[in-house]
Amino acid sequence: MLQREKKTKELKGESDSTSKAKPWVDQDLQDDTEIPSPNQGDDEEDDPGSELDLPHVPYAPPRYAVDSMLERSRDFYTLLNQRRSVRFISPEPVPREVIDNVIRTAGTAPSGAHTEPWTFVVVSDPDTKHAIRTIVEEEEEVNYRQRMGNKWVKDLAKIRTTWVKEYLDVAPYLLLIFKQTYGIGTGGKRKTHYYNEISVSISCGMLLAALQNVGLVTVTSTPLNCGPRLRVILQRPTNEKLLMLLPIGYPSDDATVPDLKRKPLDDIMVHI
Amino acid sequence: MLQREKKTKELKGESDSTSKAKPWVDQDLQDDTEIPSPNQGDDEEDDPGSELDLPHVPYAPPRYAVDSMLERSRDFYTLLNQRRSVRFISPEPVPREVIDNVIRTAGTAPSGAHTEPWTFVVVSDPDTKHAIRTIVEEEEEVNYRQRMGNKWVKDLAKIRTTWVKEYLDVAPYLLLIFKQTYGIGTGGKRKTHYYNEISVSISCGMLLAALQNVGLVTVTSTPLNCGPRLRVILQRPTNEKLLMLLPIGYPSDDATVPDLKRKPLDDIMVHI
Repeated sequence: MLQREKKTKELKGESDSTSKAKPWVDQDLQDDTEIPSPNQGDDEEDDPGSELDLPHVPYAPPRYAVDSMLERSRDFYTLLNQRRSVRFISPEPVPREVIDNVIRTAGTAPSGAHTEPWTFVVVSDPDTKHAIRTIVEEEEEVNYRQRMGNKWVKDLAKIRTTWVKEYLDVAPYLLLIFKQTYGIGTGGKRKTHYYNEISVSISCGMLLAALQNVGLVTVTSTPLNCGPRLRVILQRPTNEKLLMLLPIGYPSDDATVPDLKRKPLDDIMVHI
Repeated sequence: MLQREKKTKELKGESDSTSKAKPWVDQDLQDDTEIPSPNQGDDEEDDPGSELDLPHVPYAPPRYAVDSMLERSRDFYTLLNQRRSVRFISPEPVPREVIDNVIRTAGTAPSGAHTEPWTFVVVSDPDTKHAIRTIVEEEEEVNYRQRMGNKWVKDLAKIRTTWVKEYLDVAPYLLLIFKQTYGIGTGGKRKTHYYNEISVSISCGMLLAALQNVGLVTVTSTPLNCGPRLRVILQRPTNEKLLMLLPIGYPSDDATVPDLKRKPLDDIMVHI
């Protein structure tokens, strides 16, 4: 009985806090981390398995000579500048270990208070891929026709995006990246996941670099309004929300991309 | 007179739309892209310099043999797994071209409708760095003492973060990453920057990979509530909001990091 009472109090406290002003949340950042109110913090149980006072250890990563730094920085830019979003993916199988390593790499991203608030759902089962495709295409068609109006349709006309997503059936893997909007500690207490959306997005950037590094392609999509339905069919818990959907594979032989240009350095950088 | 009337109508229309329900904005994503209401879209002027129907070109990136893919994926994971957030940075100068290439690399990230909604402000001027440090430390101290309460202070106690940020004076470069919440097209019309916060965060992930690749270190910080003051001293326009602040340099000789562990693959990945 005590456990349930505690949970009710916690849930009630959190719903109260979200309706009050939250000066400790940066108004400029849209990542709406659920931070409990200051008074509530005292109720939270510390994870008994965690160390409250972690030791610090020396950190001395590899250092490169200047010439090597220049060469490495040029080569890495060349590699990533070749990356494009690709919607034409081959059905050819991809070695599973490569996918595992790419996801391990994404998991090395920094995160608010080291909460690592990400779940990478890798789908290769054909029936599940097809179910995902059905849901995504249904929602996307509604989006295009009803919700977005002329503005969005005009912008995307430039890159000829439509609601038919054949790659969702064809690509050997679909990667659905979920953000954990909060964690569950021992004893069922909620754990705050600071800046979870920003953290998972940063992780996605590293994942894209890892894919490019092995010659795989994807398109980084944020399917509008599909999140809840996809969460259910993939059996993810309620603290997880879909952030991105990435089909992964080799490019198809006839793959094309829109002839877009990237801004030059002077357009994106200011030096003071 | 007509131009001003149009602008007034546009601003009025946008403030009306934000107060109505927005079914075309994904409720699950916190990146609150400002998408004008469907009716307003018709008033927007197309950028006369842009192509409404971009040609598609073949895309055939380098392909690696399976053995090579495995090796490259392992090596890249090893490289990025060595990356840590580092708060002890050497004052030693870093070659400017390396920084330029790192930022070029960040600029290759995907973005909503290819809007590239990022501004990378690189600060090496000592007085400006000191002004930044003063602002950040003032705000951080208030945060710690007043706004966050016990919860945040307890979590961060594990990694001994305080409001003193010596690295803001010491690091050879401070990189302040701004998100462009909307663009300004020709004729002064607003340009929607879809998912700008997610896009800039993805870009940041690529930037962190690029820094790690050349042996430089940083800490990815989101200084609470400093955005407006920093935007002003860096003379950024009102459509830009600070997303992240990264001090960049070599690690100091006595650099340490908290002895944190990363989750194993099975804790972050689900395969269906």
